[in-house]
Amino acid sequence: MSKTFHTVLIVGGGLIGSSLARACMENNVVKRLIITDKDADVRSRLNALNIGHEVAESAQSVAAQADLIILAVPPGAMTQAFSDFADVIKPDCLISDVGSIKGKIIKDITPLLPKGVEFIGAHPIAGTENSGPEAGFASLFTDRWCVLTPADENSISAQKLKSFWEKMGSQIVFMDAQRHDLVLATTSHLPHLIAYALVGTATDMETVTRNEVVKYSAGGFRDFTRIAASDPVMWRDVFLGNRDAVLEVLGRYIEDLTALKKSIRWGEGDVLLKEFTKARSIRDRIVDAGQESATPNFGRDMQNDSSDTPDNKDG
Amino acid sequence: MSKTFHTVLIVGGGLIGSSLARACMENNVVKRLIITDKDADVRSRLNALNIGHEVAESAQSVAAQADLIILAVPPGAMTQAFSDFADVIKPDCLISDVGSIKGKIIKDITPLLPKGVEFIGAHPIAGTENSGPEAGFASLFTDRWCVLTPADENSISAQKLKSFWEKMGSQIVFMDAQRHDLVLATTSHLPHLIAYALVGTATDMETVTRNEVVKYSAGGFRDFTRIAASDPVMWRDVFLGNRDAVLEVLGRYIEDLTALKKSIRWGEGDVLLKEFTKARSIRDRIVDAGQESATPNFGRDMQNDSSDTPDNKDG
Repeated sequence: MSKTFHTVLIVGGGLIGSSLARACMENNVVKRLIITDKDADVRSRLNALNIGHEVAESAQSVAAQADLIILAVPPGAMTQAFSDFADVIKPDCLISDVGSIKGKIIKDITPLLPKGVEFIGAHPIAGTENSGPEAGFASLFTDRWCVLTPADENSISAQKLKSFWEKMGSQIVFMDAQRHDLVLATTSHLPHLIAYALVGTATDMETVTRNEVVKYSAGGFRDFTRIAASDPVMWRDVFLGNRDAVLEVLGRYIEDLTALKKSIRWGEGDVLLKEFTKARSIRDRIVDAGQESATPNFGRDMQNDSSDTPDNKDG
Repeated sequence: MSKTFHTVLIVGGGLIGSSLARACMENNVVKRLIITDKDADVRSRLNALNIGHEVAESAQSVAAQADLIILAVPPGAMTQAFSDFADVIKPDCLISDVGSIKGKIIKDITPLLPKGVEFIGAHPIAGTENSGPEAGFASLFTDRWCVLTPADENSISAQKLKSFWEKMGSQIVFMDAQRHDLVLATTSHLPHLIAYALVGTATDMETVTRNEVVKYSAGGFRDFTRIAASDPVMWRDVFLGNRDAVLEVLGRYIEDLTALKKSIRWGEGDVLLKEFTKARSIRDRIVDAGQESATPNFGRDMQNDSSDTPDNKDG
């Protein structure tokens, strides 16, 4: 097995798949980059965007050429996507993915692997609220974490996959699949679920018209609608596929929220102040860790405001 | 009563007060702008930042000169802040505020008003997660909504206050105080509370170390920490002061979240997909309404990425 992958096939041309293809091309990571998608319309858009060396008609038609095949489809579609080409792959082809959950994907795909073929799960922690090939961009993975969940992190294939993702600009961490699923349930899956729930509550408020929710969204609500705008199919699959970990953290969250509710009802200002004060420091640490912009409002309101600092005001 | 305010006193030099002072100066809205703060350290920082025509030692010492006095202190400090200078104000001085709740502030201040003096509540729906005079900037209110809650929206004072805020770049809406409190409970207070609760849950997760929450925060969690980093004292006062409306929407929210939890437990993928799909359209409407940036991830990840569009990729 050589140190790099000659031919890489990306199955799925959405936000993540098309971004990965762009990143492979831009960073000259592979000799040949083939991308495909089940959806003919997506394939034609990939072609129009000139993504990769080749947009294949199907995974089945090109999988035999590939040294690395990356499944970039929603978690619930992984098994079918793999089955479509499992019978034609080379014995030393490495199979990987980009799914936001790992345990269930590994569990489903492992029994389908031809003898000797290895699957190593990967999860680049990167994305935007947009979907589709037009939404992708090459720097999506730059300075973002990519979690790999190999059985043996010292294996040649694990080290090759690590090197591949490093060339996308990512920082790599090896992690047990079960641990990944619990950590991500906290830092990603729960935030998305509570954002979806909030959008539901707000739109359903009978006494508040929709128009007013939109109108006054800058008070905080708009932040939540961003992540609630993410791909619904992908997120359905995440919640169904990582059920136990999500139910665990969601249960704790509802407890915490209910405790705050009680403090509001009973006017316990000191309890509220203590809870709210804790939250500030974690924001600072996320900014310090390079995982977030330090500019107020994520910088979105400041775009025409560069001359408006206290230092150069004329008052 | 003339059509504009000659002398304006802003009581409180934090994010909102100092931003308003800057906006008054930059837009030449008043003849004389005085700002003060109870905290000597804040006063000295306001002086160092050269904010307004004068940084007064106390509201009491200058309130007699003012035609408009704006209370820019946390909701729970409004009554005391007003009492400090109530006995020296001119009979035709207008009192206003910038508080995120309206009903309780009006209820508390009205009995303290000297005969003939009017209070009109104002709430500029603008802010950032930062606090203090250094965090302020003149364009904070530009293109944001400002809610006014006068008893009579056709009164001279209501129209003068409307004109004042229009000069800050705000769009004005008149609203009943009770309605304001319910709408904002949905669009602002509830989002902040669920963000505070999430940060609490995440940091308390015993099986997930803090470091990992920070490390993988780009998966969604970091969005929530921004609004959970807002001023804790102000938010304590908001929840205590708008208790009934907050409990009403929070109750509905917990119901909605519990229903999603049940759907996850029972694997009801179709229910989840339907709920998640609803959420996308409201995001589009917020962007269309000019209340939000359309760029992915609020634009925060794209800052070094301007050359990286599909159109000019070289692949």
